[in-house]
Amino acid sequence: MTLLVVGSVALDSVETPFGKAESVIGGSGTFFSASAMHLAPVQLVGVVGSDYPVEKLEPLRARGVDLAGLERADGTSFRWRGRYRHDLSSAETLETHLGVFSRFSPKIPEQFRRAPYVFLANIDPRLQLDVLRQVDRPKFVACDTMNFWIESRRPELLDLLTHVDMVTVNEGEARQLSEKYNLVKAARWIMERGPKVVVIKKGENGAYLFRGREIFFAPAYPLEDVFDPTGAGDSFAGGLMGYLARTGASDPAALRRAVIYGSALGSFAVERFSVERLLEIGRDDIAARVGAFRQLVAFEDELPA
Amino acid sequence: MTLLVVGSVALDSVETPFGKAESVIGGSGTFFSASAMHLAPVQLVGVVGSDYPVEKLEPLRARGVDLAGLERADGTSFRWRGRYRHDLSSAETLETHLGVFSRFSPKIPEQFRRAPYVFLANIDPRLQLDVLRQVDRPKFVACDTMNFWIESRRPELLDLLTHVDMVTVNEGEARQLSEKYNLVKAARWIMERGPKVVVIKKGENGAYLFRGREIFFAPAYPLEDVFDPTGAGDSFAGGLMGYLARTGASDPAALRRAVIYGSALGSFAVERFSVERLLEIGRDDIAARVGAFRQLVAFEDELPA
Repeated sequence: MTLLVVGSVALDSVETPFGKAESVIGGSGTFFSASAMHLAPVQLVGVVGSDYPVEKLEPLRARGVDLAGLERADGTSFRWRGRYRHDLSSAETLETHLGVFSRFSPKIPEQFRRAPYVFLANIDPRLQLDVLRQVDRPKFVACDTMNFWIESRRPELLDLLTHVDMVTVNEGEARQLSEKYNLVKAARWIMERGPKVVVIKKGENGAYLFRGREIFFAPAYPLEDVFDPTGAGDSFAGGLMGYLARTGASDPAALRRAVIYGSALGSFAVERFSVERLLEIGRDDIAARVGAFRQLVAFEDELPA
Repeated sequence: MTLLVVGSVALDSVETPFGKAESVIGGSGTFFSASAMHLAPVQLVGVVGSDYPVEKLEPLRARGVDLAGLERADGTSFRWRGRYRHDLSSAETLETHLGVFSRFSPKIPEQFRRAPYVFLANIDPRLQLDVLRQVDRPKFVACDTMNFWIESRRPELLDLLTHVDMVTVNEGEARQLSEKYNLVKAARWIMERGPKVVVIKKGENGAYLFRGREIFFAPAYPLEDVFDPTGAGDSFAGGLMGYLARTGASDPAALRRAVIYGSALGSFAVERFSVERLLEIGRDDIAARVGAFRQLVAFEDELPA
């Protein structure tokens, strides 16, 4: 089944302890698409400026990402420059130029409006709500958000929560949104506002899936060499939603597997700059990593008398 | 099989956002014993001062902790006073009085010297080495340590590593010891110094078990109410070593299960002050929590074509 994503399509300049990348393709919509395309047909809605090297998105298009919803506007593209220190745990933002993204008003092409799976990446909740007004009763809608919107668009974000099936947030955002430190309580608070499912991303410390009283946990894959964490969360969301769209499911067992696929795709994303690694991998690589996740957590619980 | 532990037996005064406890029983040897006693007979070696309320250890003795190695010395007991803020992630030490512990020289009673499983809790590596000289070729030896010894007793600690089968350290200690930030590399570095098995504890973010190229991960149990994190790591080690001693095993499958038992016991420890919760629980509680761990990570990895 088709998966619609609305998010940013950006140019990233990244410095890590292992190297530098200058003006490489990035953004939430881009990472999400490069991840989800391994599992389902993707429809990407976003905006780029006249300076954007759209030919660099060609490998995504060739693998099933429909770019008909990628608007080209006069002006400069969204650019982000950041740096990671040796611990790679959080990016230091050096520069952000929103460019044409500051005036982004998502227009969902007619042929995208019946996508059964929809992901609203981290953009203004007013725009996320506007996207939902344009689509035709999707089967499953998920959204992401960030500290900036939690602070500046709280009423709109709370409104949005009543319209989505799932929220993916990192642990800091879950705490900020719910004003609860304990993540079990934070997830419950968010679920009480509408979403049946809450996913809390903890970066190198894995991810929780909450659904009613049920909790599932997936570790992050213990990579020996994390190269560039940029886009890990969006790639995770892409794998998760891609799995659901592929299977047409959203039941508890499918959600658990979806989180594992998300973790697998997220773990590939951080092995190279930009979407480089996501463009290299194939079905066998993904299957092998999902198998590695099983090995990572497998145990038999026998207690001899 | 019997499990010998050498560690501190202390009096803790703890303040958390949920309450205060004054001069309650604590220390690495105490938490380890109160956890491991659910799984195997424990022999505790430690020292207390003349002020220690030894009658408070009676519930441990009644459940199979042999206190014949608990020395009573003239002077004051090891006392620690600490405070946790709302995030409960790290203790702020307000006071430490080593008292008789500063002159601790472990004497292993004759009847303890053939214990097949030995845990050297966090004490001076010179004393840990001295314990190993007193015991009669145990089947499996594990040790803990801390930042202070890594800095001040590095040569002795590296010597100790050549004599133990397993090391349990937290992530900060693993990094400090190995001078490697990446935990996979840190674990490999430590294994190259002797131990076949390295366990890296990440507190609320779970624990890794490394053995050769194999990696196992156990999450921390997502408790809605963490009351007092004091002793979690030692209770984890107690459950882990207790499981190995109970089964007489140390093969890879047993080590995985042992980490889960460690995580289960550690999760009980933090539900009350001191060893209170560890004294309440029984076999059914532990079995139920181990089952909950299985539910927490269980998934089926099917990818429809």
